[in-house]
Amino acid sequence: MQKPGLPKGTRDFGPVQMARRNFILNTIKDTFQLFGYQQIETPAMENLSTLTGKYGDEGDQLLFKILNSGDYLKKVDSNDLEAGSQATLNKVSEKGLRYDLTVPFARFVVMNRNDLTFPFKRFQIQPVWRADRPQKGRYREFYQCDADVVGTDSLVCEAEIILMIRRVFAKLGLKDFDIKVNNRKILTGISEAIGEAGKEGPLCVAIDKLDKIGWEKVQEELAERGFASQSVEKLAPLVNLKADLKGKISFLKEFLAQSETGLKGVAEFEEMLQILSQMGENLEHVDFDIMLARGLSYYTGAIFEVKVNGVSIGSVSGGGRYDNLTGVFGLPDVSGVGFSFGVDRLYDVLEELDLFPEESLASTKILLIHFDQKGFEYGLKVLSQLRKEGIKAEIYPDLAKVKKQFDFASKKGIPFVGICGDQEIESDTLALKNIESGNQESISIEEVVSLLK
Amino acid sequence: MQKPGLPKGTRDFGPVQMARRNFILNTIKDTFQLFGYQQIETPAMENLSTLTGKYGDEGDQLLFKILNSGDYLKKVDSNDLEAGSQATLNKVSEKGLRYDLTVPFARFVVMNRNDLTFPFKRFQIQPVWRADRPQKGRYREFYQCDADVVGTDSLVCEAEIILMIRRVFAKLGLKDFDIKVNNRKILTGISEAIGEAGKEGPLCVAIDKLDKIGWEKVQEELAERGFASQSVEKLAPLVNLKADLKGKISFLKEFLAQSETGLKGVAEFEEMLQILSQMGENLEHVDFDIMLARGLSYYTGAIFEVKVNGVSIGSVSGGGRYDNLTGVFGLPDVSGVGFSFGVDRLYDVLEELDLFPEESLASTKILLIHFDQKGFEYGLKVLSQLRKEGIKAEIYPDLAKVKKQFDFASKKGIPFVGICGDQEIESDTLALKNIESGNQESISIEEVVSLLK
Repeated sequence: MQKPGLPKGTRDFGPVQMARRNFILNTIKDTFQLFGYQQIETPAMENLSTLTGKYGDEGDQLLFKILNSGDYLKKVDSNDLEAGSQATLNKVSEKGLRYDLTVPFARFVVMNRNDLTFPFKRFQIQPVWRADRPQKGRYREFYQCDADVVGTDSLVCEAEIILMIRRVFAKLGLKDFDIKVNNRKILTGISEAIGEAGKEGPLCVAIDKLDKIGWEKVQEELAERGFASQSVEKLAPLVNLKADLKGKISFLKEFLAQSETGLKGVAEFEEMLQILSQMGENLEHVDFDIMLARGLSYYTGAIFEVKVNGVSIGSVSGGGRYDNLTGVFGLPDVSGVGFSFGVDRLYDVLEELDLFPEESLASTKILLIHFDQKGFEYGLKVLSQLRKEGIKAEIYPDLAKVKKQFDFASKKGIPFVGICGDQEIESDTLALKNIESGNQESISIEEVVSLLK
Repeated sequence: MQKPGLPKGTRDFGPVQMARRNFILNTIKDTFQLFGYQQIETPAMENLSTLTGKYGDEGDQLLFKILNSGDYLKKVDSNDLEAGSQATLNKVSEKGLRYDLTVPFARFVVMNRNDLTFPFKRFQIQPVWRADRPQKGRYREFYQCDADVVGTDSLVCEAEIILMIRRVFAKLGLKDFDIKVNNRKILTGISEAIGEAGKEGPLCVAIDKLDKIGWEKVQEELAERGFASQSVEKLAPLVNLKADLKGKISFLKEFLAQSETGLKGVAEFEEMLQILSQMGENLEHVDFDIMLARGLSYYTGAIFEVKVNGVSIGSVSGGGRYDNLTGVFGLPDVSGVGFSFGVDRLYDVLEELDLFPEESLASTKILLIHFDQKGFEYGLKVLSQLRKEGIKAEIYPDLAKVKKQFDFASKKGIPFVGICGDQEIESDTLALKNIESGNQESISIEEVVSLLK
């Protein structure tokens, strides 16, 4: 008899994990909807022509490909065997599993552009698949949770991203976190200002290591990457800058005085702050991080990254503004801004901080327990009454020892049992026992209802 | 530039479809949870060793197989090319997409048998994939929505299935439907009683056509299938039986008097009715259909099928009791009972009957509309106030013509707009307009809140 197993890098989610994941996902969903985002779903499978070339060579390697149905080898001959797996791919497979939610969303926008109402605010919560080497915290199937607005340049969207992140974190009980914000145009401006126009990519890669390796080593790396020593010198005041948000802004206005793009970036940042202020919102958790450079090649305006402090996992959310989501599918000039939550990472953070609410674990509120057929029948009647009041209730379905029934309740995390003994049957009550405290009292069904509601 | 498309047989779900699907799925989920069922999820990919051989030869053909990562051709030589696609399959693929939720659930139970609390009530709502020929109403990716209890023989589970189906249909607004119930043991008993023991399979296939082709043609078919003419004769009183539920039961008790299995089936059916009665429930929508034979090879006890009357699509839900869910994975004697809702079919039924509630279409309740920068800024402030009260609200994010903003609201199905004109700004009010009725009045923000809440 075969012993069943799971494919490498995939997971089952049992009842407790699902309840906890739903707690996270429902919090995020509620927030997206409060801000007017609408849910869509796209198929797990996409044509390989939609997916390939969008994630770089490495990404193409990591796509899961679906074998063509039927006689999939019919186009393959011995020459193909010699040509090798990659050259032969298009003869045996034409579909793949989605690798992220961004490319399918771009495809969706292009295919439905005549029916959508722009600005279009969509969210999407679905699994994606990557044939990565599985390791701790990295899976081959995992959920992504994206929200994007396309079809507007308004910085209201950026301000709202900050508000949505704050709301989700507040509802999850997370208190110590930073929403790092920057603007790609500021990074472009900085490379212009130090005389290395167009090199913001390597600049940020090097600067990103500042915390780990220190300024001296970063200088060495910049030199190795071909930055002139006088450029690196010009960078020093920026690296050493100790200032609050307003101090950073005035510093940058001077530092970027010669860079039109750089000043535009600062202006966008200021306008976003202005909108927050017009909304009556403060700047709690907002951290202007001049060197933040997440997904540089892609973003053209604001850049976001959220870090939870004091936990082993850092970044749990991020995003930014882009200018050309759908160009690759023939629809140019679709600007948008989007962000996403890392569900697996949030799960680990909440677990590490012990922030999952107890009630998310136990959906059933009460188990009805019985000693004999008479109690069982009484329990059936009560069960029906409780459920009609919307109370999640169960009865132990077999005649079984009371200990077994109690064990069932406690293993399933059911907080209350309702004991159907002879006395209770006579007086039309339940002996309601709180499993955690051990307290027990015989009360009427109406009282049980109002207590559990 | 490539024009993007979708793989054959797959679909995108846009905002309206998603809102409607969520209306159905949330109704089902709520009901499952009210009855103590817990959600699990399993990965989209399973090892082919888990999937193959479970769905018959045709099912194996319809599995979507995943190409091995990397150099997938490395084990294939020219001999394999000659041997053909099927013989070579295990050299190029070891994983497939799940074909249903039952086999993954069986695998889950076996792998987690030491950690689960039995009786284990689980529900699972996830897509499945089948390489079927796409046609109207049949897709290559579709959601299944299953609930099963394993580890108990209690007929409380059967009674609760009826109650769950009734609750879901009531919440969906469906009124005219039949829950057809039968028991496999009754079918076994009938074939014994007519002297054709073990032939309940072909018997039911033929009888199933009664409505379409009439009793005479069915008799011919039974003869062709090797039923003796005296057996067919014995069947006649059953086929012609016009009786209510109680009448059917007493008829069967006589008809099946010589079949122990048959009488057991009747007794199980009666016990289920007894439990419903002890719960204080009536038998509305319950139809005892002696010839119902859904998924015969699989079920061993109760059999369910739900038909909505007066619509083109009939069966929207079904299930039954089985004796050996996990035997194929080495864990014998796991009895259970389960049922599922056909989400795509329910969607079509609700659409045909125009039963989708309006509010499921529009998540955003109010759009704030402005004439100029001053109104925009006032709108930002009000927006924040509304959202803090939990009201799903949006502002048109750009300075745009009022008509464009109104169009946006109406296309997105937003029921109210709040106009931020000079008068409103001065008096700290909103001109609240009901898009459908056209009514408009200027009221305070507090009044807007209490009206929209």
